Amino acid sequence: MGLQAILNAHSREADAPTSLVVTFPTDQPLHMDAGGVLAPLTVAYQTYGTLDAARSNAILVCHALTGDQHLANIHPVTGKPGWWSAMVGPGKPIDTDRFFVICSNVVGGCLGTTGPASLNPATGRAYGLDLPMVTIRDMVRAQAMLVDHLGIDQLFCVAGGSMGGMQVLQWAALFPTRVFAAMPIATAARHSSQNIAFHEVGRQAIMADPEWRRGRYLDEGSRPEKGLSVARMAAHITYLSDQALHAKFGRKLQDRVAPTFSFDADFQIESYLRYQGRSFVERFDANSYLYMTRAMDYFDLAADYGGSLASAFKDSRTRFCVASFTSDWLFPTTASRALVHALNAGGASVSFVEIETDKGHDAFLLDLPELIATSRGFIDAAARARGLA
Amino acid sequence: MGLQAILNAHSREADAPTSLVVTFPTDQPLHMDAGGVLAPLTVAYQTYGTLDAARSNAILVCHALTGDQHLANIHPVTGKPGWWSAMVGPGKPIDTDRFFVICSNVVGGCLGTTGPASLNPATGRAYGLDLPMVTIRDMVRAQAMLVDHLGIDQLFCVAGGSMGGMQVLQWAALFPTRVFAAMPIATAARHSSQNIAFHEVGRQAIMADPEWRRGRYLDEGSRPEKGLSVARMAAHITYLSDQALHAKFGRKLQDRVAPTFSFDADFQIESYLRYQGRSFVERFDANSYLYMTRAMDYFDLAADYGGSLASAFKDSRTRFCVASFTSDWLFPTTASRALVHALNAGGASVSFVEIETDKGHDAFLLDLPELIATSRGFIDAAARARGLA
Repeated sequence: MGLQAILNAHSREADAPTSLVVTFPTDQPLHMDAGGVLAPLTVAYQTYGTLDAARSNAILVCHALTGDQHLANIHPVTGKPGWWSAMVGPGKPIDTDRFFVICSNVVGGCLGTTGPASLNPATGRAYGLDLPMVTIRDMVRAQAMLVDHLGIDQLFCVAGGSMGGMQVLQWAALFPTRVFAAMPIATAARHSSQNIAFHEVGRQAIMADPEWRRGRYLDEGSRPEKGLSVARMAAHITYLSDQALHAKFGRKLQDRVAPTFSFDADFQIESYLRYQGRSFVERFDANSYLYMTRAMDYFDLAADYGGSLASAFKDSRTRFCVASFTSDWLFPTTASRALVHALNAGGASVSFVEIETDKGHDAFLLDLPELIATSRGFIDAAARARGLA
Repeated sequence: MGLQAILNAHSREADAPTSLVVTFPTDQPLHMDAGGVLAPLTVAYQTYGTLDAARSNAILVCHALTGDQHLANIHPVTGKPGWWSAMVGPGKPIDTDRFFVICSNVVGGCLGTTGPASLNPATGRAYGLDLPMVTIRDMVRAQAMLVDHLGIDQLFCVAGGSMGGMQVLQWAALFPTRVFAAMPIATAARHSSQNIAFHEVGRQAIMADPEWRRGRYLDEGSRPEKGLSVARMAAHITYLSDQALHAKFGRKLQDRVAPTFSFDADFQIESYLRYQGRSFVERFDANSYLYMTRAMDYFDLAADYGGSLASAFKDSRTRFCVASFTSDWLFPTTASRALVHALNAGGASVSFVEIETDKGHDAFLLDLPELIATSRGFIDAAARARGLA
């Protein structure tokens, strides 16, 4: 596919996605934390496997900042495998032969669920910044509407990494009886100052691009490609560890034997980052990036419970499996430990594993034996406890 | 001073600096690593204290990426105290009552030494990207020309942090007999992959700004302020530690009691970063930022010595004091340890201290008791060994 074809395909996905879609009528609006409602609300989602007769084997997977609902199928825009193919599929820990797996594009996203790139029925144009600010709780409420629509009372498991993990925690706090098991991975109960700082750099890069047109670029036939690309480059560094970058790229030169003494991409790491920026622009909407980063920044679960994270999980019956990675400096193990302490204080059942890897934050997306084995063990044990085959 | 007045003051500093200036005639060109020469070469510098009769008490301080020669006086553009006032002055470790302290703006800088904002005599316009690429070794060669001009054979000490530390190491390797003592702080003998990555983000942010005008913004009466501001914001995060950001800002809101659910600077960290970006634009040239970051990226001292860092310091008679900071993740202690091992292997005299602090990379600029005490002890001992009062 050429670039224009990819961009066209991406634009189509915002309003006519290659996914299952449910549009809730205007009398079933989504009430937003920022005030006001979203109506009608459209949710685009994928399912894998079969819901059992008791409707007891559903696993909801929540996607990360730049993820989407295509977790275990070929992506309709990029043509690449789903982002959690390592974890989800026949015989995988989240086994689509045994479980009914749901993944929906979050509110504010750009792959079919109502977001800033969607058509605003009130104006006939893209929402742009007219979309109310989205919070993690808004995302979870919309997912709950989808789960209701599918006739599922209790989810067997809610799982996800990074921003997906925030949604897992929000699910367990908001709907404790609807979550039998929860797997928050490489995440935190609140976004740190450093994390907000990196997000703010990305937003400023996008908003500094004159093609952003104060958020109205879609109406004006433009795209803030350079700004979005810079935002992605900065963020991408935070997803990897210093060790992994050293091991993979070091100071190796790209297709040359000596430095050119220029601003070309002399080093492989530069070439790699530029590629990450370019390819991201093809599949993501800049305003969506603004909304998603902001939702993460605003996330502070304890704040909703009088400053006590333990109170968010008080008397929880949910079984938790918390996982972190040694080289993840964006959501370091200290954040997971704080979460585990709060869960323990709240009396919840929790297992915790810190996985040794040099792959950094993005490790949750990878086929890491220890992550796969941990997830398999936790899900199998929970399935037995739930009386699932 | 209003913004325009500050910008005018800054522009003046590039060609008519508030500093001592030496312009080397065209028959004394600077030979550049990238090929070609720079002629005439102008070096702007500050001195403090008095050179003794034996010309034996000179300390050269090398400045960091966004530093300049104004290390211990009020800055002519910003009106703020010099960047190393904690370390340099009467009674300070680098005691201006005892030593003759020199600090010059590096080649490629924008405070009076020849750089991309300087007038290119061949065209009558600013050099812009017509300036040959600058390396750390080029900076050091230009400093050596200045030291020659001042009639100084051997420097008592060369000191600096970060990019300044790279110059210290380059001095000791290139001119071993001209450096009695060396203090490389919070630095490394080569730039890491992650460091190159962060620099590349900054460069792409600048070059994405249409006001950059392919580097010709000064001729065209423009300035890539937004791009340079984003570059600075991204870099600034790397100068601080996660812990320090948490302690200073946490998730505190800026002048409000509740989030606005908008893209305003709700959080103090956002407001702080935006201020860092804005104020940097007032005192720094965007092309200079490109050149300085590139010089650091290209720095790999071992590469010039057959891949052996120890060879760079073989039989060195220089006394070294290497210092790193526990919370510096940009130039972590591992980089300093690698340097110390190489110095030991080369047979050099070296003392090493890792200073416990949560202040991150920028700790080298601060009035930290352990840093001040370490520096004082090292310099006093070296002075005794050198027979200085």
